[in-house]
Amino acid sequence: MLHIEQNDLNIMSSRYRAQLINSLPGFKSVNLIGTISNEGQTNVAIFSSVIHLGSSPALIGFISRPDTTERHSLDNIKQTQQYTINQVSEDFWQAAHQTSARYEKDQCEFQHTGLTKKFINNIRPPFVAESQLQYALTLREIIPINLNGTILVIGEITDIFCTDSAINEDGYIDIESLKTVSVTGLDSYHVSQRLARLAYAKPNQLPIVING
Amino acid sequence: MLHIEQNDLNIMSSRYRAQLINSLPGFKSVNLIGTISNEGQTNVAIFSSVIHLGSSPALIGFISRPDTTERHSLDNIKQTQQYTINQVSEDFWQAAHQTSARYEKDQCEFQHTGLTKKFINNIRPPFVAESQLQYALTLREIIPINLNGTILVIGEITDIFCTDSAINEDGYIDIESLKTVSVTGLDSYHVSQRLARLAYAKPNQLPIVING
Repeated sequence: MLHIEQNDLNIMSSRYRAQLINSLPGFKSVNLIGTISNEGQTNVAIFSSVIHLGSSPALIGFISRPDTTERHSLDNIKQTQQYTINQVSEDFWQAAHQTSARYEKDQCEFQHTGLTKKFINNIRPPFVAESQLQYALTLREIIPINLNGTILVIGEITDIFCTDSAINEDGYIDIESLKTVSVTGLDSYHVSQRLARLAYAKPNQLPIVING
Repeated sequence: MLHIEQNDLNIMSSRYRAQLINSLPGFKSVNLIGTISNEGQTNVAIFSSVIHLGSSPALIGFISRPDTTERHSLDNIKQTQQYTINQVSEDFWQAAHQTSARYEKDQCEFQHTGLTKKFINNIRPPFVAESQLQYALTLREIIPINLNGTILVIGEITDIFCTDSAINEDGYIDIESLKTVSVTGLDSYHVSQRLARLAYAKPNQLPIVING
C-alpha cells in the first residue's frame, strides 16, 4: 500500500491532487441540474455531488462551487427558487459531460450540447428530455461551507417523473435498468452490474439477498 | 413517465417513500467509517453519503443521522476528532452491509461482521484491513442541517493508503480496478464497467475520450 501523507498533498500539483482527492469518496452520482433565470435564460449543468438528505420531507442536496460554471445554476436557483435534477444515462453521458465547459452566461448549454429542453406543466425550470428519471425541487436552504467557500444547496422534491417499469413494488427504483451512469474521479464514467439487494441488516442474522 | 406529486409523497408509506427517495440521487459511494472512543471501544459503520467537498485543503464530508447506529460513529468522532474512511469492494460488501445492524454501543461491529481491524502508525481509529483504498481524517467542522436534524460532518485528509497499481499517472485512482462497489436506493449493491474517461470539456470542442 502506498502511503500519501499530508505534506505530500501540500506539495503535489493542483491538477494531480484534484484527480487524487476526487477519487477518494468512491462512485458518485451523475445528474444534470436544469435552471432558468427570471429573464427566461435556461441553463443545464452536470453535478457529481447530488446526495440524499432525507425522505420525509424529501430533501436532496448538492454542492456548488462559487468559482465555476456551476455558479450560473446557483444564481438562477436563487432567483426562481426552483430547479430540476435529471439522472444521466448511457444514452447521453457525453453530452452531459460537455455541459461542464465554460459557456458564457448568455449561452444555453442545451443548444450547445444537443440536449433537449422540456417544460412540464407549470414547473418553470427545464427538464432534460433524454432523462428517464427526473424531478423538480423547491429551494429550502443554502448553507455556506466556510472552510473552502463551497455551498450546500438543499431542495425539497415537489414532482417526480420516472419511467414506470423501473419502479419496483417496494418503491425502489431500478436505475440500472434506466442505464444510469456513475462517475469516479473527475472524468471517468461507468455503467453498473447489480451484485444483489440485501435485506435490512439485523444483529443476529447473516446478510440475506432479497433480489439477486 | 409516471408522475409522482408532492401529495403522493405525503400519503405513501414511510418504507416505500424511503426506498423511492433514496433511489433519486443516483449511484452512491459505499464506505466504512472507522472510529474509536476515548475508552478504546472501536466502531465501524457503513455510509452511503461520503462526498468530495474540496481538494485544497482535502475535505471530505458525510451525512450522519442522529437516530441510528451512525450516532455511535459521530459520538466517537467528537471525542477523538479522528476517523478513517475505507472504500468497500466486491470482496467484503456483504460484511460491510451487516455493520448497519443495530448493534449495542459496547458491541464491536468488527467482531460481529468478520471485518478485520487494523491500526496504522499513530493513527488512533481503526482501518478496515480488507479495504484497498483508505484514509484518515481530522474533524474540521460539524454543520447541523436544521431542516431534518441530519448533520454534515467535514474532515480533512491526513493520510491516504492505496494499492499502488490503482493510481494512474495523473493522480486519478482507478477504483474500478479495486473492485469498489456502489449502492443504489437503500440496499442494492453494484460493480461497474468503465465507459471511458473524458477530457476537460471546452466550449468549442466535442467530448474527447482520453482513456477508453
